[in-house]
Amino acid sequence: MSLLVVGSVALDTVQTPFGKRDEMLGGSAVYCALAACHFTDVKLVGVVGDDFHNDATELLRQRNIDLSGLETRPGKTFRWSGVYADDMNDRDTLYTALNVFEAFNPTIPEDARTAEYVFLGNISPKLQLNVLEQMGKPVFVAMDTMNFWIDSARDELLEVLSKVNAVIINDAEAKQLSGSTNVVQAARNIQQTGCSTVLIKKGEHGCFQVCGEECFIAPAYPLEKVLDPTGAGDTFAGGFMGHLARARGTDSRTLREAVVYGSVMASFVVEQFGVDNLLQLTEAMIRQRYDEFRRLVSF
Amino acid sequence: MSLLVVGSVALDTVQTPFGKRDEMLGGSAVYCALAACHFTDVKLVGVVGDDFHNDATELLRQRNIDLSGLETRPGKTFRWSGVYADDMNDRDTLYTALNVFEAFNPTIPEDARTAEYVFLGNISPKLQLNVLEQMGKPVFVAMDTMNFWIDSARDELLEVLSKVNAVIINDAEAKQLSGSTNVVQAARNIQQTGCSTVLIKKGEHGCFQVCGEECFIAPAYPLEKVLDPTGAGDTFAGGFMGHLARARGTDSRTLREAVVYGSVMASFVVEQFGVDNLLQLTEAMIRQRYDEFRRLVSF
Repeated sequence: MSLLVVGSVALDTVQTPFGKRDEMLGGSAVYCALAACHFTDVKLVGVVGDDFHNDATELLRQRNIDLSGLETRPGKTFRWSGVYADDMNDRDTLYTALNVFEAFNPTIPEDARTAEYVFLGNISPKLQLNVLEQMGKPVFVAMDTMNFWIDSARDELLEVLSKVNAVIINDAEAKQLSGSTNVVQAARNIQQTGCSTVLIKKGEHGCFQVCGEECFIAPAYPLEKVLDPTGAGDTFAGGFMGHLARARGTDSRTLREAVVYGSVMASFVVEQFGVDNLLQLTEAMIRQRYDEFRRLVSF
Repeated sequence: MSLLVVGSVALDTVQTPFGKRDEMLGGSAVYCALAACHFTDVKLVGVVGDDFHNDATELLRQRNIDLSGLETRPGKTFRWSGVYADDMNDRDTLYTALNVFEAFNPTIPEDARTAEYVFLGNISPKLQLNVLEQMGKPVFVAMDTMNFWIDSARDELLEVLSKVNAVIINDAEAKQLSGSTNVVQAARNIQQTGCSTVLIKKGEHGCFQVCGEECFIAPAYPLEKVLDPTGAGDTFAGGFMGHLARARGTDSRTLREAVVYGSVMASFVVEQFGVDNLLQLTEAMIRQRYDEFRRLVSF
């Protein structure tokens, strides 16, 4: 079963207490795709400038990621730079240069329109709607969003929410979107939009999912050292959607497993800079950490 | 198997967004004892002033809490008052009047010195050592502490840690005590003191336990409404120690179960003001919520 991922492709310059990396391959679609490709076929839709490295394209292709929806436009690729504080919980954005991403208008290739699983990365709600209109009848669509859209495009965002199966956001966004500081109330309020599964990521505190009436809580993997938190949320989404596509299910049990696979992939990605760790993972490593998650919460 | 609880007995005046209560029965020993008495026999050691209500004493006695170690001294009972912010995560202390608690010097009654399970509430490390010296050979001792003692009596605190089996503290205290902002590193550092089980409470984010090499994570119960968070930590300790005493075990599996029972009791106490909810709980209610915790993390 194939997964369509729509989002940003970027070159990230990141500084953490453990080092600095310049112009690493990044962006929501890249992190999500590189996580999901361990589980299922992935088609990536995004845009890059004519400065985008061939070896980056090659790297994605080697992971069997279908790049027929990756458009190259004249101009520069989206660039982002951030610096993380000592405890890794706060980060300052040094610059955001949208470049060709500013005019991104996703066109879904013909053969990707029948994808049964779709992840709408953090792009404008208008573009997310635009993607949905191009799609056939996907089985399960999950979306991300951010504070900027919650503030500036609330009505369109609510429309997207009414049309998707799941939203994957962080706790600050959930509180902003719902108006509630209580995470359970926040999730319940967001369900009122019509989106039946709400997944709230709480970073080192794990993740809270409501799916219909049911609550599920997954911890974050207890890591002694986080090298670079960039992309953890999109990597989570990749593991989550990848497992759903692989398992061909959207029942409550499969959704719980998917949350754990999302958490597994996120726990790996932050152990190295950028996407590095996603590139060297094996099925056995993923399975082993999944089993460790089970031991971690068993009683 | 009986549990000895040493700590404060107080009259708390608490204001939360949901109301205000004056001079409620409170204090670390009271919350811990009223939680633990659902699991095991409890002996309470503490001090009150001659203004302490007879009906409060009666209430504890009705729960089979042995008060032969509750001393009455001339003067006033310890009083504390606090006000909680809207999101319940921050609180301001309005006043702390130690009164007779200032000169508290716990004397353990003869028949309590053979207690096999001991909880040392948040009193000075010197007094905690003093209690330990009076005891026979307890099977399992857990302790609490706070920022004040970590700052002002670090050496004595480290001595207590070297003599107990478990420490139950919150994340801010764990970071202060260990010097690490990473919760896993913090727990590992604290284990170096000789205390093999470290339990870090993270409020609404649940609780992290390391026991030897093993990690265990329990969520907090997802509550839509928290009326009054006062005493949640001591209530957790009561459920935790109560289960250990009841199960007569200190193996890793029993410690995990104990963490969940602690979380169950804490989730109940915050649903009402003060100790109110602890007074009306039944075994069936506790069992039911314990089972809900299992469903909450199952995958």
